[in-house]
Amino acid sequence: MTSLEQKFVGLGAENAPGQEVRQDTSHLDAQMRGPKIDGTPVDFSHGDVDAFPPTPGAREAWEAGYDVGSKQAYTEYRGDAAIRERVAIHLAALTGASVSSDQELIITPGTQGALFLALGSVVEQGTKVAIVEPDYFANRKLVTFFGGEIIPITLKNEGDVTDHGLDLGQLEQAFKDGTKALVFSTPNNPTGTVHSQSCIEGIAALAAKYDVTVIVDQLYSRLLYSGETYAHLRACASRPENLITIMGPSKMESLSGFRLGVAFGSASLIERMEKLQAIVSLRAGGYNQAALNTWFQEPDGWMADRIAKHEAIRDALLTVFRGAGLQTATTQAGSYVFPELPELVVSPDTFVQLLRHQAGITVTPGAEFGPHSKNNIRLNFSQDETAAVAAANRIVEMVERYRA
Amino acid sequence: MTSLEQKFVGLGAENAPGQEVRQDTSHLDAQMRGPKIDGTPVDFSHGDVDAFPPTPGAREAWEAGYDVGSKQAYTEYRGDAAIRERVAIHLAALTGASVSSDQELIITPGTQGALFLALGSVVEQGTKVAIVEPDYFANRKLVTFFGGEIIPITLKNEGDVTDHGLDLGQLEQAFKDGTKALVFSTPNNPTGTVHSQSCIEGIAALAAKYDVTVIVDQLYSRLLYSGETYAHLRACASRPENLITIMGPSKMESLSGFRLGVAFGSASLIERMEKLQAIVSLRAGGYNQAALNTWFQEPDGWMADRIAKHEAIRDALLTVFRGAGLQTATTQAGSYVFPELPELVVSPDTFVQLLRHQAGITVTPGAEFGPHSKNNIRLNFSQDETAAVAAANRIVEMVERYRA
Repeated sequence: MTSLEQKFVGLGAENAPGQEVRQDTSHLDAQMRGPKIDGTPVDFSHGDVDAFPPTPGAREAWEAGYDVGSKQAYTEYRGDAAIRERVAIHLAALTGASVSSDQELIITPGTQGALFLALGSVVEQGTKVAIVEPDYFANRKLVTFFGGEIIPITLKNEGDVTDHGLDLGQLEQAFKDGTKALVFSTPNNPTGTVHSQSCIEGIAALAAKYDVTVIVDQLYSRLLYSGETYAHLRACASRPENLITIMGPSKMESLSGFRLGVAFGSASLIERMEKLQAIVSLRAGGYNQAALNTWFQEPDGWMADRIAKHEAIRDALLTVFRGAGLQTATTQAGSYVFPELPELVVSPDTFVQLLRHQAGITVTPGAEFGPHSKNNIRLNFSQDETAAVAAANRIVEMVERYRA
Repeated sequence: MTSLEQKFVGLGAENAPGQEVRQDTSHLDAQMRGPKIDGTPVDFSHGDVDAFPPTPGAREAWEAGYDVGSKQAYTEYRGDAAIRERVAIHLAALTGASVSSDQELIITPGTQGALFLALGSVVEQGTKVAIVEPDYFANRKLVTFFGGEIIPITLKNEGDVTDHGLDLGQLEQAFKDGTKALVFSTPNNPTGTVHSQSCIEGIAALAAKYDVTVIVDQLYSRLLYSGETYAHLRACASRPENLITIMGPSKMESLSGFRLGVAFGSASLIERMEKLQAIVSLRAGGYNQAALNTWFQEPDGWMADRIAKHEAIRDALLTVFRGAGLQTATTQAGSYVFPELPELVVSPDTFVQLLRHQAGITVTPGAEFGPHSKNNIRLNFSQDETAAVAAANRIVEMVERYRA
């Protein structure tokens, strides 16, 4: 096998959200315990933008962009200047640190695009990159694709820990050992836990001390539940010179169909990212960019209502899973839960396929997020509440049927 | 300088279309000969979708996609199955060879996205890739970014050559010397010349013989002028096992603002491209994909009218440039002309900046397309005809002012 072949084996996307339709499921009938379980099918692999539709005005903003014509179709690679200017003001206010719209911000095709460009600007053959376990599955794949070496860092979110975040001792050792970059998400994807203020300050100080580039994925930071607080790394007094923050309107705002994200931070990295964008896909869709004009300008009360509805679903799902004895961290922000399943008589991958085949439920296997979470499943609970709770109960029934 | 720094120096995008606004032009006043030349500003660096608006129904198709909701927002990474099915039928009819919509087609974020994914699936450190000179500027940058080695191949389009295409002897030597892939555009970008049937058959046979992967960019193949014929490599009797054809509705159809392209061909390469798409930007914008439902289904007469209007502009510009003694190949398809300028008293880059500063005209410098075309300039003449012809006359006047 050539090294390129190996690289693409490592990029397996069969279990990635939305790709389940390409799986061969002919072997599943022979492994089924009991009959199919009826119920409204729920695809927990991503949010349901029918249950939680896009921000009011997003469609009209797109249409206004289309009507602008050529100027909106062909923006700078880093995105339309006027839109960047508006967005930069909101991002500075949210995160507590200034953003130059001209030098320090790029609009990308989704936050996936931002992650790709950011890592592509930092990682080359042999670059050591600290990756959290568990964390968003693409982080590891991106480092592998660019030829980097993954240095695993443990997420402390087990049991009764309330000071959520990374193991800073382990992180400092990795930095001492030549790690050049750290990429992580907060709230963590898949657990939904938010890195504490002290953890974020610790990461920032260590990265500054060892001159490590930090890429922090804050995609879900606006969907913050009652009683929780959120720390922005870029607002820390001591912060690394090379720092990129990634956000986007694909989650709480349900604009995923527009493929929009933003990365903001160090000008030299943003410039590299734009150069890379120029050969990757030129720019985020021109007319789509106009939908960013709705971002941070949602109607009064819309955001509070959306958060409250997600919080209600979160509480209901936690009750179902914990009631069945499945250890599940409390989602502090975002719309993921990551229950841990007991030992089963089938492999975790087969169980996930059976969930879909037998109970009409799509989830993402925990192994996608790191080697130590293969017994977990990730659910995006941005769904119709009734359907989601019924599906959670079907998951529990399936666990009982297949328990070892 | 680290190797990553060098790589990004090689990705310079300052002269890329749309990026001119980021240039420092403060030094130009001191170099100006004569006053500014008034006239409607024309940006020849890309087509003007105000002069030639998107396909009728494209906006409505997007809106219909938006109304579909979650299913359209979250398609498979390779794109919505029903849309792929429709598009595959049209592409098979156009190119004269079958396309499996399930296995052999991926919808990408523009044809730029398709090129990136295709080259990323084939090129790794040290891979020798044959690149035509001149050809689309991103081809060379992509090979460099993936660590490949560029093997230059000459385009025969000088003087009275009518059998347009590549130097096949040079190509065979490159294949003998270990070249693993060939990427090229037909019609050629920037010259607008179409590779002849015999050239295409020759490329196909050589690539089959030496097991070379071919990526052929046919973005502009539908905009074919009267009296011209077009050869599809994938329809050749002898063709390579690994072959990807790239097209998209960004040019004649003016859907560039939707960022849509397609790549079709060998299933194993399409699968790699999808895996890469999964970490690059997930998918082409979901709602945008719906605009492909207008593709190859334009209203009766629309395409003929659009071609005739472009042909009239082509003829007018050729008359202006050739009248001034600037050697210019006849555009056979697409909307580029690539006139060669005489020796000037300023550098080609400075002249291009002066064109913009002094005469309100944006063009792309020939050096972007290869090392032997630094005295050429590329114009995309998909513009308002009156404004384009007036601007061409201003270019001639500028050439006279700065002639060495």
